[in-house]
Amino acid sequence: MKKNNKQMKKNAYDIFLSGLQAADPVYAISKHVTLKNHTLYIGNALFNLKKYKRVIVIGAGKAAASMASALEDIISDYISDGIIVVKDGHGLLLKKIKVHEAGHPVPDKRGILGTNKIINLIKDTTESDLVLCIISGGGSSLFISPANGISLIDKQKTTKQLLACGANIHEINTVRKHLSNVKGGRLAFYVYPATLVSLILSDVVGDNLDIIASGPCIPDRSTFDNAKQILKNHNIWHKIPFSVKNHINSGRTGKIDETPKPGNIVFNKTLNVLVGSNFGSLNAAGKKARQLGYTPLILTSKAEGEAKEIAIFYAAIAKEIISSGNPSPPPVCILSGGETTVTVKGCGKGGRNTEFTLAAAIALKNTPNVTILNGGTDGTDGPTDAAGAMADQTTLYRASVLKLDPVKYLNENNSYEFFKKLNDLIITGPTRTNVMDIYMLLIS
Amino acid sequence: MKKNNKQMKKNAYDIFLSGLQAADPVYAISKHVTLKNHTLYIGNALFNLKKYKRVIVIGAGKAAASMASALEDIISDYISDGIIVVKDGHGLLLKKIKVHEAGHPVPDKRGILGTNKIINLIKDTTESDLVLCIISGGGSSLFISPANGISLIDKQKTTKQLLACGANIHEINTVRKHLSNVKGGRLAFYVYPATLVSLILSDVVGDNLDIIASGPCIPDRSTFDNAKQILKNHNIWHKIPFSVKNHINSGRTGKIDETPKPGNIVFNKTLNVLVGSNFGSLNAAGKKARQLGYTPLILTSKAEGEAKEIAIFYAAIAKEIISSGNPSPPPVCILSGGETTVTVKGCGKGGRNTEFTLAAAIALKNTPNVTILNGGTDGTDGPTDAAGAMADQTTLYRASVLKLDPVKYLNENNSYEFFKKLNDLIITGPTRTNVMDIYMLLIS
Repeated sequence: MKKNNKQMKKNAYDIFLSGLQAADPVYAISKHVTLKNHTLYIGNALFNLKKYKRVIVIGAGKAAASMASALEDIISDYISDGIIVVKDGHGLLLKKIKVHEAGHPVPDKRGILGTNKIINLIKDTTESDLVLCIISGGGSSLFISPANGISLIDKQKTTKQLLACGANIHEINTVRKHLSNVKGGRLAFYVYPATLVSLILSDVVGDNLDIIASGPCIPDRSTFDNAKQILKNHNIWHKIPFSVKNHINSGRTGKIDETPKPGNIVFNKTLNVLVGSNFGSLNAAGKKARQLGYTPLILTSKAEGEAKEIAIFYAAIAKEIISSGNPSPPPVCILSGGETTVTVKGCGKGGRNTEFTLAAAIALKNTPNVTILNGGTDGTDGPTDAAGAMADQTTLYRASVLKLDPVKYLNENNSYEFFKKLNDLIITGPTRTNVMDIYMLLIS
Repeated sequence: MKKNNKQMKKNAYDIFLSGLQAADPVYAISKHVTLKNHTLYIGNALFNLKKYKRVIVIGAGKAAASMASALEDIISDYISDGIIVVKDGHGLLLKKIKVHEAGHPVPDKRGILGTNKIINLIKDTTESDLVLCIISGGGSSLFISPANGISLIDKQKTTKQLLACGANIHEINTVRKHLSNVKGGRLAFYVYPATLVSLILSDVVGDNLDIIASGPCIPDRSTFDNAKQILKNHNIWHKIPFSVKNHINSGRTGKIDETPKPGNIVFNKTLNVLVGSNFGSLNAAGKKARQLGYTPLILTSKAEGEAKEIAIFYAAIAKEIISSGNPSPPPVCILSGGETTVTVKGCGKGGRNTEFTLAAAIALKNTPNVTILNGGTDGTDGPTDAAGAMADQTTLYRASVLKLDPVKYLNENNSYEFFKKLNDLIITGPTRTNVMDIYMLLIS
């Protein structure tokens, strides 16, 4: 029996919530970290907590407080000490772990202070210590410790030059990692010879561990030479503050240690576990879809590109499913995730997810038995208070009744207002996590 | 065993050729039309040719000559007469069917002459006649007969106004169908009460039969009232030639017959068979992929949107397949089709397919075990002599050796020259058919 539009909307929302739940910091930690008879199970590894003299929790990121709280719920009795750095207003009162709030997305001195406290806490650890490091989105700005002789301002000037000249994220990170005491695996220097386990909630497309929070516990393949070459290639070497140039040149001549490379002894006792990711959320959403009677099909967790164009392709997939049953016959739930972009030309209000939904609704025209839902797992789509929006066969008709021209709203990047008027926004409030967006087609 | 880049390129090309073959007019006709003991089998229907007094072949389109030739190969002995209108230079010498060449894409008097000859041939058909009508892309310009009192120039002026004011294809067609003697199902008026079988090769996204060649044999849901409303809505009614306004007003007051609607008696003995389509070609390509050891997955035959953005999404699907085996584990062949668009900003040389391939190569970076092939089934990608291009793991490396900057080539819409230098263009020559493009990802 075909489901009606209302049932499908409810199904779509429930599937989205399952994706959100999998990205919830508390859920993500408790799913991957368990304790039984003094033994801590993390991923496929196990740690006998009785054998460790100290268990120290460190970390940074927007979701760090919730993750730390979840960790305390599991091993509070074993934690000897801990410090984390979180975004302003994202702190929680914890039992053993100290929470420092700091500036984000623009880093500030409080971030440096918190990070230096973390360094002080771990630099004397020994073989008998276990360090648990919590990493989530925003970590790059919060986990911040400019290398000796470089001021925060000089570091920021360098980043600004890189952004202005059009350097890509890999180039920017290569330079950043060579101006920091903690990025690019340097944190592992301090922790060694203690055991280091990172629990990572990924907010980047592709889940590259060396990009999330600039990979403080991950081997780095780039060099001081690469960093200089990037600045030279973009013709900005002469614009870079002296302290930065001096530091990079010192690194090139061996006066300063390189970032630790793959195979470095400091990584002998490190373990990195992805506790939450876009793919994890798509997978959880897919499981829920199956329970509700839809065959789940995950196309990709690495979606990028212009939202309204991907929306047209999404609509084309929906039409094919209805006309030929390819790639999978209905009832089916097509899932993608990632982070699309919106090239803003109008001056309306909207985000990636509402724009994606509006463009898809237009392309789908009034195709029956299709519901589309797009939402950000952080609960805030662009500069709005919505996570995203839903559309179905009734959308364009209801818009016409209200005399709303969907194409005009799309051209003005005013998708938020469009769906607000139709009462089809998804409002979850801030979720304090982020594994990017979920793009869902439901076809019955 | 993983295949190497060279093997995969060969596989991709062979899979593309299988798609082309399915769209070949001769193959398309012979696959759907067979003769056995004086009985003609078309689709699921059969016609005892001994029972018909006359078998008449009519039609129009760029592929009509090849389709007619294939039909002659099957039922030459039974054909009593025939006339088709084809594009300049697309004629063939046939045994019984007369071939008229005419202007395309701008219609001319030769098109009107040919179409009127067709009308003369069929207007006296009786119940004992069978009319086979061959339709393919370009038919709208070739199958042309302005309604009485309207000159070709007035009709063209109307179309130009519609295009200039941004009317969509459905609006344009609604007006067109009400200014013609053959479009919008009117051809069926002449054929009735004879039996009318249309053999259609689709070149439009979605295969809507009323859009291909403006649906001469298909019921029309639009009215003279709709036509006037469209011209009024776009504020161009006052700019339309008097003869056209007069004709539309006469239609509204019943002085001129409406186009035949669904349920009209003239459609009682009509059959429409899609002998070739993008989906048909994707299906054939998928079969070949399976033979070569790849699981085929057809995402959509209705793809639209900006080529370089869809390419980014395609690359994201490839990466997901490699990292998690979703939506299908390798070896897999992802197939889509349709007609994407290119927003031209540079002044280079390229088409949809080469641009799609270049953008995908950039987004894929050097991902191993992926080959991408995009090609137009008509053999001509935009204003080029190539059908499309291929890319794989070696593309960016080989480009760097030749000092080609792929991003620069993409920004200049110069994808043809990029792949020409890499020797990765697909050159098939004009195929004299068109079921739009094939977009293929091969992952081993």
